[in-house]
Amino acid sequence: MAAAKPENLSLVVHGPGDLRLENYPIPEPGPNEVLLKMHSVGICGSDVHYWQHGRIGDFIVKKPMVLGHEASGTVVKVGSLVKHLQQGDRVAIEPGAPREIDEFCKIGRYNLSPTIFFCATPPDDGNLCRFYKHDANFCYKLPDNVTFEEGALIEPLSVGIHTCRRAGVTLGNKVFVCGAGPIGLVNLLVAKAMGAAQVVVTDLSASRLAKAKEAGADFVLQITNESPQEIASKVEGLLGGKPEVTIECTGAEAAIQAGIYATCPGGTLMLVGLGSEMVNVPLVHAAIREVDIKGVFRYCNTWPMAISMLASKSVNVKSLVTHRFPLEKALEASLSQATRRCLPKESHRGPHGRP
Amino acid sequence: MAAAKPENLSLVVHGPGDLRLENYPIPEPGPNEVLLKMHSVGICGSDVHYWQHGRIGDFIVKKPMVLGHEASGTVVKVGSLVKHLQQGDRVAIEPGAPREIDEFCKIGRYNLSPTIFFCATPPDDGNLCRFYKHDANFCYKLPDNVTFEEGALIEPLSVGIHTCRRAGVTLGNKVFVCGAGPIGLVNLLVAKAMGAAQVVVTDLSASRLAKAKEAGADFVLQITNESPQEIASKVEGLLGGKPEVTIECTGAEAAIQAGIYATCPGGTLMLVGLGSEMVNVPLVHAAIREVDIKGVFRYCNTWPMAISMLASKSVNVKSLVTHRFPLEKALEASLSQATRRCLPKESHRGPHGRP
Amino acid sequence: MAAAKPENLSLVVHGPGDLRLENYPIPEPGPNEVLLKMHSVGICGSDVHYWQHGRIGDFIVKKPMVLGHEASGTVVKVGSLVKHLQQGDRVAIEPGAPREIDEFCKIGRYNLSPTIFFCATPPDDGNLCRFYKHDANFCYKLPDNVTFEEGALIEPLSVGIHTCRRAGVTLGNKVFVCGAGPIGLVNLLVAKAMGAAQVVVTDLSASRLAKAKEAGADFVLQITNESPQEIASKVEGLLGGKPEVTIECTGAEAAIQAGIYATCPGGTLMLVGLGSEMVNVPLVHAAIREVDIKGVFRYCNTWPMAISMLASKSVNVKSLVTHRFPLEKALEASLSQATRRCLPKESHRGPHGRP
Amino acid sequence: MAAAKPENLSLVVHGPGDLRLENYPIPEPGPNEVLLKMHSVGICGSDVHYWQHGRIGDFIVKKPMVLGHEASGTVVKVGSLVKHLQQGDRVAIEPGAPREIDEFCKIGRYNLSPTIFFCATPPDDGNLCRFYKHDANFCYKLPDNVTFEEGALIEPLSVGIHTCRRAGVTLGNKVFVCGAGPIGLVNLLVAKAMGAAQVVVTDLSASRLAKAKEAGADFVLQITNESPQEIASKVEGLLGGKPEVTIECTGAEAAIQAGIYATCPGGTLMLVGLGSEMVNVPLVHAAIREVDIKGVFRYCNTWPMAISMLASKSVNVKSLVTHRFPLEKALEASLSQATRRCLPKESHRGPHGRP
Repeated sequence: MAAAKPENLSLVVHGPGDLRLENYPIPEPGPNEVLLKMHSVGICGSDVHYWQHGRIGDFIVKKPMVLGHEASGTVVKVGSLVKHLQQGDRVAIEPGAPREIDEFCKIGRYNLSPTIFFCATPPDDGNLCRFYKHDANFCYKLPDNVTFEEGALIEPLSVGIHTCRRAGVTLGNKVFVCGAGPIGLVNLLVAKAMGAAQVVVTDLSASRLAKAKEAGADFVLQITNESPQEIASKVEGLLGGKPEVTIECTGAEAAIQAGIYATCPGGTLMLVGLGSEMVNVPLVHAAIREVDIKGVFRYCNTWPMAISMLASKSVNVKSLVTHRFPLEKALEASLSQATRRCLPKESHRGPHGRP
Repeated sequence: MAAAKPENLSLVVHGPGDLRLENYPIPEPGPNEVLLKMHSVGICGSDVHYWQHGRIGDFIVKKPMVLGHEASGTVVKVGSLVKHLQQGDRVAIEPGAPREIDEFCKIGRYNLSPTIFFCATPPDDGNLCRFYKHDANFCYKLPDNVTFEEGALIEPLSVGIHTCRRAGVTLGNKVFVCGAGPIGLVNLLVAKAMGAAQVVVTDLSASRLAKAKEAGADFVLQITNESPQEIASKVEGLLGGKPEVTIECTGAEAAIQAGIYATCPGGTLMLVGLGSEMVNVPLVHAAIREVDIKGVFRYCNTWPMAISMLASKSVNVKSLVTHRFPLEKALEASLSQATRRCLPKESHRGPHGRP
Repeated sequence: MAAAKPENLSLVVHGPGDLRLENYPIPEPGPNEVLLKMHSVGICGSDVHYWQHGRIGDFIVKKPMVLGHEASGTVVKVGSLVKHLQQGDRVAIEPGAPREIDEFCKIGRYNLSPTIFFCATPPDDGNLCRFYKHDANFCYKLPDNVTFEEGALIEPLSVGIHTCRRAGVTLGNKVFVCGAGPIGLVNLLVAKAMGAAQVVVTDLSASRLAKAKEAGADFVLQITNESPQEIASKVEGLLGGKPEVTIECTGAEAAIQAGIYATCPGGTLMLVGLGSEMVNVPLVHAAIREVDIKGVFRYCNTWPMAISMLASKSVNVKSLVTHRFPLEKALEASLSQATRRCLPKESHRGPHGRP
Repeated sequence: MAAAKPENLSLVVHGPGDLRLENYPIPEPGPNEVLLKMHSVGICGSDVHYWQHGRIGDFIVKKPMVLGHEASGTVVKVGSLVKHLQQGDRVAIEPGAPREIDEFCKIGRYNLSPTIFFCATPPDDGNLCRFYKHDANFCYKLPDNVTFEEGALIEPLSVGIHTCRRAGVTLGNKVFVCGAGPIGLVNLLVAKAMGAAQVVVTDLSASRLAKAKEAGADFVLQITNESPQEIASKVEGLLGGKPEVTIECTGAEAAIQAGIYATCPGGTLMLVGLGSEMVNVPLVHAAIREVDIKGVFRYCNTWPMAISMLASKSVNVKSLVTHRFPLEKALEASLSQATRRCLPKESHRGPHGRP
């Protein structure tokens, strides 16, 4: 347990702008935990945000916190009660692990549990380190044909799964994805994997849209200065009809408005992007057409599904990675976040907050 | 069947402020229709609105239109293909009858059909008249122990059924009903009938709240100048926890805000009241707690359910009636609308508009 | 912790026919547990079955086991991590408490967890004793207006809730409950509380049917030697139409057949009673009419709902109790099981088996 | 429009073994209908069965009946009220068109309507002819990139869509398809399109399994003389776990048993194949593991979805066609049914019966 030697290099945020690569002791797994040697860990917009600002909303870094929550690794030690994992198993890590079976956990919505442990959300440490212990039930064995890197990418992919599942995306659907950042891309990938027939992706950036096109978008639409109604109309034109599902990943007020206008009667508008606390929107236009408006908070019950998809090659997440760094260069990696695989601030479940 | 004689007295709106009691010919039912001798017809806020303003939103009275859409009557003539009804049957009338089996009708959401016939929505005539013909599949036989008056009240009751069903109200739920007008009351009645354990109703008016209390509200709360957050907090206090379902029946911006703050994570906020086109709301507060926001447009598949409820005495709608008039006094009845059983403008699916 | 004194009287089955009232040590609650002083504990058919036969199916009493799983009590000691309960709280006990957040627990169906702890199912001890410790998250605080006895009856009530919820019982439904034993009764009570308009209950026994009538059955039908088709026809006649939901609580082959014939197209047949391993049934008759056939295994997510119902007086379970005994007379109570409040062998989720 | 000339060649069954190619008058479309010039019409096992036996179950050919219900064609005349189609449109035909908006149609399950019109089910004529009129709302315009042949194959594909949708097949699922005939194949195709990760198909025939493998089965398993439990065990082995969904397409008693044993707790067993009226099955084994058992009757709401899938190339149905004949050779085509693209008797919703 004790670690005199620099054996567990960890990327630790101490406060706004104060990021350090430090040696932590190697933790000892509890009876229901496993100790992991980390392999691949993504750096996400929220990690960078904690580093730069020392907080996201009400989540404030009050004591040093290890970053990282998109991760995979290898089991090196197994808790006494763990049965489904053994030393040497390659696993993907679900960063949110309920601390108790509370009312939300009981009904299968443990992401809403106010007492959940969540990697790299204050005060819980993340896994951008060499060795990390985690609840064994939230470590999922990877098949041989799924790489560590894919394992780490299950985290962003999970946002897409949780969103598309709550949206009820199904066979033959027309889907409108607003925003071509990483969260837009994972929603595109998952919607197609669920059988969506046609997906249109919109963004301000032509280069982002080019990535969306590569990733399988049937149509892309670059937004310049169209009104929300004009965007809705163009989306309808491209899809040959109003979409049953709109997935809003930017959080921008105008985009939410466009999503309301665009979605077909009886359809669903998903709010994934986070923007201002208050927004001015034509709610009545959604209400009288029975367009349901739903948000997502992180995800639940996505890892097994994602692993199956990756193993059966029904989704390709490799395009989500932009750079690769060894842990020793984590500081440098963090600096390069603007161009790297990361979940940009505006489109991510940034706060990782308690509901 | 042409009617030279004054045999079919009808209440007809010709334009803003121009309401006349006229004699219309008695119509001939088509092969799938029945001819009804009308018995009880409610006068609702939308009827009065068409009379006073000649329009509701984009629905404009361009030619004379018979009012009335909350109705029951007796079958006097049966179309050649009708099998389930016969002369003398007492029936309740569902005012919306699809003209075709379009994409919405096929999936069981015919209320969203853009070509639906709907009583007293321009250009379709209503049934505030002596004789009226209607699609036989949308006339429902009343059991002996359900009165004509109850039959007519199925229409407002249906708004409550459709709303509570889409909200997923179930056994043991805590429910917050915002607004104690007729639509608030029917939602209260239906929520209780579906097994809601505790319902709190809020309103500005003490007398309305007294009615809600009589109708079965577990708690009432008179709003004065509380902020939306304060209302949410008081509701939580009364219910002993945040409600799983909030049913907003006023359309007021502050009330929608209160509904978002009040509803528990994973719960549902129903938008029934209609207010301004644009509202300023904390959508993100709903989104990150996975509070779904859903509207309703009229109703579908509610009449058989309502008749079963009325027949089994599991709901009592009699309190919804305030006055009774013979048809000859329909003009007078319309004038008295402010104090009568009616669905007030602000809380009703007023436009009866196409989605 | 040690218990030299006879301080924790417990009813223990040692093997077939070998039931003893013994003194056990008072257990020490773990960090997530509470210690309870037991108040009311029902004796159910499965308890008696373990005593008389030493087993139910593959569940074999291999070491002494305390009986009892329908229970309520008072918190006397609180584990270090427990926040929602304190000493003196009156609680109802959910007997099944997951040992881990496995794949079933994660999706909200923890009743299917193969590693769940379940009171009085070998090798897990029950709570027919003076002092008992339990997972605090599965102890639910009782409001002042819910008695200990009602608290203990939540267990059988839960079978009804879980069944009616999986059946989708809703407002205005016609329901056919086959069997008027305790499980039939709780399904009747819950179906009515969920808004069922008409419930018919069938049984061989006139006295059982009299109880069903008292408990709120709209119709009862005593079965003599009717064929399954004849039963279906009589049920349809009484209800004025085929039921949307049939709840089969006997496990008898003929009753399952009757359930298939009786249920309306698109309806649901619930299998609650347990009978022979193999049954001869007209499955195709269900399949081509899209009558879904669903079973239940115990229950999940029912205690909070049941407490709300009891607190709001929307269900009355007192009729389920037949006798009352002090713990010292537990042996005598067990002997009287044939006439007592108990879940009879044939109609109960007897095995309490792992799925 | 009367037809003295041989202008509407039709394949007509007059009774058992009595199939004739006759000239019928060209029908006149009603106001809500279109007249079609037929292009591609599949010949299915039920067509052949009517020809050979003059009946399927209670559906008896009492007067001459045109065969054919898997079809596509071109609009040549448009009824007066039809708005969404015009002359020259290429369409796929949904053979079941409700005659009225009855209780089943209202809730979106029009396939269960007892009065539905259905092609080539006595007494309703099919469309194996030159000219055919049909309800315009049940004719769906084909995009340019969907062929007539694909349009005709939407009918069998619809069985797969309706089944997989009712089964709730979703992303990452393990699926067990029992039977590799045409219905097994369409279920395989649809399950994969809905995101199933791994599908195993079983059959007695190696050549059928080879087709399943070509069509995308991840695993195939040839059954010889295994017991139902052994089959279940082998399926579990191949999939690396019990399937969430089993789709039984043979109707054989042993296969239904295998389906019950194979499906994972909380999963769903779909009954698609039709076999004996009575079957001996371990229902309790399904019930206590909450394995739901559901059948299908034809389909509803599948054509738009299928067209989207075909247009987006997310499913390939061409392998379902074995032979092609001109209408003049329809008698010969029928004779060759044993080796042709057809839905074999044992695996098809043969009766096309009313529920």
